[in-house]
Amino acid sequence: MDLATVNALHYEDFVNIFGNVVEKCPIITAAVWSRRPFVNFTALEAAISEFIDALPESGKEGILRCHPDLAGRDLQSGTLTRESLEEQAGAGMDALNSAEYSRMARLNDEYKERFGFPFVICARMNDKGNILLQLSERCRNERAVERARGIEEVKKICHLRLQGLVLIDAPNKL
Amino acid sequence: MDLATVNALHYEDFVNIFGNVVEKCPIITAAVWSRRPFVNFTALEAAISEFIDALPESGKEGILRCHPDLAGRDLQSGTLTRESLEEQAGAGMDALNSAEYSRMARLNDEYKERFGFPFVICARMNDKGNILLQLSERCRNERAVERARGIEEVKKICHLRLQGLVLIDAPNKL
Repeated sequence: MDLATVNALHYEDFVNIFGNVVEKCPIITAAVWSRRPFVNFTALEAAISEFIDALPESGKEGILRCHPDLAGRDLQSGTLTRESLEEQAGAGMDALNSAEYSRMARLNDEYKERFGFPFVICARMNDKGNILLQLSERCRNERAVERARGIEEVKKICHLRLQGLVLIDAPNKL
Repeated sequence: MDLATVNALHYEDFVNIFGNVVEKCPIITAAVWSRRPFVNFTALEAAISEFIDALPESGKEGILRCHPDLAGRDLQSGTLTRESLEEQAGAGMDALNSAEYSRMARLNDEYKERFGFPFVICARMNDKGNILLQLSERCRNERAVERARGIEEVKKICHLRLQGLVLIDAPNKL
């Protein structure tokens, strides 16, 4: 879909199409519709980032808490969103061996217990080994550092989900 | 569920149980978990209201845009949330005659065209006749008035959804 089409969308279609670029937070997409027209892909992405950055810290934690665990309950029970399922499967989260699965579950629990929100990482930019490594390392960070780090990852996920939906502007059209 | 139980919930259970007290906005519930423990029902409700009030105007419009039309496409196609379905059915929105249905559809479209967000009203506090009357009257308001009015209605809906989930504190416990 090109930007002109995006800019012409009624809010209902806009929210239906882009509602999950931030996992389970259609309010963000729905808010950003007020900012159209977007001059290019970057402007659309920036509007989403700015909305997130303007939230209080509790709101940023709220975004993180709307994310599922990696290789967690929602993957097992088939209740992941379509986007999350594709991303987790792409990183091999649906094909962990028994030892990897146990390690992931233990570290996820440790992370959630420590921070009060789940470990969020852009699965499409990482493989299984790297995800386990980062999870174990990030468990040792301070809470404020991890909140900020999680939100950075949310933005990377959002970037890739947007890229799957909107044509990046051709350079000669800028 | 009493407040002590609510206050002891892990964020995942809290979001599962309270995630839709504001329609399709689990981020709000997930953010408010950071504010626990809640001294009483009113404190929980106030934390939600304060989060909403602190959002920029685009965020408030975003909340409204996460709401379905009354007697609209989601009701016809069976894609309403459980809470919305119960509320709309209770106000007779699933039993409109042909003339009422057409009038509702026309007024909903007029409202959305004018304001860029849907007509939101607490269906459990209104009957069919009153909903149609208010919809036709509110179509004539200014946009800022309707945005604020819609958010008032969101809070009434939230109040009743919370009441269905949490025991109001007994007076002798206050």
